[in-house]
Amino acid sequence: MRVDPGSAGVPPAARVNGTSASAAPGVIARLVALLAPGRVLTGPAHLAAYESDGLTAFQAQPLAVVVPETQDEVVAVVRFCHDETIPFVARGSGTSLSGGSVPVAGGIVIALSKLNRILKLDAAQRIAVVEPGVVNLAVTAAAQPYGLHYAPDPSSQSICTIGGNVAFNAGGAHCLKYGMTSNHVLGVKAVLATGEVVEFGGASRESVGPDWTGLFVGHEGLFGVALEVTLQLLPRAETFHTVLAGYRTLEQAGDAVAAVVASGLLPGAIEIMDALALQAASAAVHADYPPGCEAVLIVELEGPREVVALDRGRLDTMLAASGPVEMRPARDAAERLAIWKGRKSAFSAVGRLSPDFIVQDGVVPRRRLGEALRKISAWSKESGIRVANVFHAGDGNLHPLILYDGREPGALDRAEVLAGKILRMCVEMGGSITGEHGVGMEKREYLPDMFSPDEIACLHRLRAAFDPLTIANPGKMFPAADAPALVQRGLHPLEKAGVISRE
Amino acid sequence: MRVDPGSAGVPPAARVNGTSASAAPGVIARLVALLAPGRVLTGPAHLAAYESDGLTAFQAQPLAVVVPETQDEVVAVVRFCHDETIPFVARGSGTSLSGGSVPVAGGIVIALSKLNRILKLDAAQRIAVVEPGVVNLAVTAAAQPYGLHYAPDPSSQSICTIGGNVAFNAGGAHCLKYGMTSNHVLGVKAVLATGEVVEFGGASRESVGPDWTGLFVGHEGLFGVALEVTLQLLPRAETFHTVLAGYRTLEQAGDAVAAVVASGLLPGAIEIMDALALQAASAAVHADYPPGCEAVLIVELEGPREVVALDRGRLDTMLAASGPVEMRPARDAAERLAIWKGRKSAFSAVGRLSPDFIVQDGVVPRRRLGEALRKISAWSKESGIRVANVFHAGDGNLHPLILYDGREPGALDRAEVLAGKILRMCVEMGGSITGEHGVGMEKREYLPDMFSPDEIACLHRLRAAFDPLTIANPGKMFPAADAPALVQRGLHPLEKAGVISRE
Repeated sequence: MRVDPGSAGVPPAARVNGTSASAAPGVIARLVALLAPGRVLTGPAHLAAYESDGLTAFQAQPLAVVVPETQDEVVAVVRFCHDETIPFVARGSGTSLSGGSVPVAGGIVIALSKLNRILKLDAAQRIAVVEPGVVNLAVTAAAQPYGLHYAPDPSSQSICTIGGNVAFNAGGAHCLKYGMTSNHVLGVKAVLATGEVVEFGGASRESVGPDWTGLFVGHEGLFGVALEVTLQLLPRAETFHTVLAGYRTLEQAGDAVAAVVASGLLPGAIEIMDALALQAASAAVHADYPPGCEAVLIVELEGPREVVALDRGRLDTMLAASGPVEMRPARDAAERLAIWKGRKSAFSAVGRLSPDFIVQDGVVPRRRLGEALRKISAWSKESGIRVANVFHAGDGNLHPLILYDGREPGALDRAEVLAGKILRMCVEMGGSITGEHGVGMEKREYLPDMFSPDEIACLHRLRAAFDPLTIANPGKMFPAADAPALVQRGLHPLEKAGVISRE
Repeated sequence: MRVDPGSAGVPPAARVNGTSASAAPGVIARLVALLAPGRVLTGPAHLAAYESDGLTAFQAQPLAVVVPETQDEVVAVVRFCHDETIPFVARGSGTSLSGGSVPVAGGIVIALSKLNRILKLDAAQRIAVVEPGVVNLAVTAAAQPYGLHYAPDPSSQSICTIGGNVAFNAGGAHCLKYGMTSNHVLGVKAVLATGEVVEFGGASRESVGPDWTGLFVGHEGLFGVALEVTLQLLPRAETFHTVLAGYRTLEQAGDAVAAVVASGLLPGAIEIMDALALQAASAAVHADYPPGCEAVLIVELEGPREVVALDRGRLDTMLAASGPVEMRPARDAAERLAIWKGRKSAFSAVGRLSPDFIVQDGVVPRRRLGEALRKISAWSKESGIRVANVFHAGDGNLHPLILYDGREPGALDRAEVLAGKILRMCVEMGGSITGEHGVGMEKREYLPDMFSPDEIACLHRLRAAFDPLTIANPGKMFPAADAPALVQRGLHPLEKAGVISRE
């Protein structure tokens, strides 16, 4: 959600509300002196490259960008920020869709792209120990020779980093079966915002006391910076059975999901794309969908050959009975990949249908999915705003894409209103304001819809345990007044280049 | 571990180092006035029934025991304790094996036995919402008609409560495949030590921000009192294949475990019992083990019929090649249950071999299991102290039972030294001082072996976020000077009656 449309169009200089570079030459000199040469970037072109993230709606100019190459350097920078009370944010590939990695104005960006080493891969123990700048898919690539993989698979997995996945508890299509990032992180070594270096968890799940590791997953950068992450690796499924089924109505597709879930089958993924999303994906990656369909359902079974063979019969029978226009089981690996390519490209492909769009991320209880989709559709008709739906149907994680034209006066405001209505509907239905994108800057104002004042007070106290000075990514997750201003800019450069997609 | 053998034998009056009942009549009167009649127990016989727990080594006399019947009453008592700065501990069935539910001397025991309602069981969503006093096995009993079960299965599951399971992140034989309690708790409603009522998590895993729920699992009573817990239910396995294999040496059994794990099979449970444990179980439940064996390995496969049928062939071949004296696959459900009865009775059965014993709980990396067992055996021979081993071999969770005779001068001290050596070995091997029993009072002194001073400082700050007055179960988990004194008393009354076993 974009919360401050009022400041759109404000010139860049006015948007920096923290210490500006010219005001703090002493700070930069001390920072430069602390590190090896070339680690600190302060040129306007450098800073501009970091002023936004995958959400694109917010931007702010940092004082400096630091590109450390060792864990010790990260620790030194955080201690420096602590000693000087300068805010900082750690950043991986900047693919956050909630504005979570937008710089704090006048603060330090700690870019972790060079901390990208896989420190250990123990196939017998099925763990990998990685630095935070390692790209999600690089873990699976390293594990593949041992028949293993890293399960969480956000659509941006070819570029997003483990540090960001940990900070935002990233999901993905296959989290239906395998759970979120938090289910796969066994240990974290981190430098807290206090400058303390701590290690929680490790190679085993049998930990002492509370789940300190779990607490560090989803922290959105508010506690400190991960230095090393121990990930669980899982054996790669022996085989897959992927079916694409086209339906005349979105409701029929939703009913088919309900039938699959009620049957007790546990597919690896259950995804739905609606008509508008299909149109976008067709145009973008030349995906070929059954004609005359208002919705496509993708169900993927995975597991041992014998189990998939058995479950496949049950699934195919169930889907055939759900009234599809057409059913297309993938006949080989290439067809399976084509189905997933269409699905994973859908977000960025929507950019072809509209100059601007808001990608939402909310959760409703699975059994209320049909009801939620009907409401969204009715609101879309009422307001005349087009909404494309691409979502993880199996776990009720909606991703409505609200299309608008930012050049049209008031269009963003109207889109915002609709996005807010959808989020509040999610909460009222017993769901959540975010499934996998996090709160970031985008949904800070909705936090009180999810938590009571007592709960928020408790969360503030927990945050203070890690960051008493509130220097670690301030202005994110919690409602606050000092956020970077909203600026309307359309697609992220990485999206424009087709490197990442919005999910 | 028992840390303060020096005070054994001190008379009860001297052991109460907090406010005594006679010193605080006003407090009790105010507490009684707060609640419905009959909720507050202060008679010596009542208090005595609560002065210890499953560990039996520690005891302390509370000021009063409160037996609330509603969540509101629990909240009222906690707020009372907060307003009056009186320490409290919540207690389920008192089966803690780490002294975690021993009263705080002069404090309030909040006995949750009457908060034992299953508030909701939603078979479609596969969740149960329960009060903290619900017995572990009662959840599975309620879920059974729907083909579901609650996976974590501590040996005391017929008596221990979900509240205690949550507080100590309980494990069990089948946690090898399914994970600990923390992997099955989706949401917690709790009253914090501040008196605030908070709800974290819920029916979905897709939460907002850090894993607040996970933080509350394993808190050992230091944060507050759970009022409602949302548990994940899993489909009951379609079929089981349980094999008991006897070996001439413990090492052969350990090698067989390594072979099974390396093969990629994921059994539901992999357990080992050594000669002394077998002797005890034989005597206690008339279990019949292959003669001439120094170790018995139990491996259980579970899952869909077709998968188990296939895996069974691989497992049986592997075990046959591992040099067992005899292999006994369970031919029916009764034989399976007999195998598990022997295993689950082993802890309390050891009481037949020795007037006293310390049950240890440590974790070593699975691949170092053989090395760990050899060291324990060598130390046992060196010191002349018998050690029985019953353990979750599959996840490296050791349960050495250190036998001694408390009537013999210095025997407890010597047993303590050996127990400490074993724990420190676990830490040095990269393991943990506890797998599933928690730190409680028993292992407080070992916390610095697991965590650095910075980490412990951080944990103290996190605790303070929930309990700034340090009134929630003080003297547990963190090293402290004000703990109840150690008293030597042998088996817990519930163990003597055979109602619970030690694990």
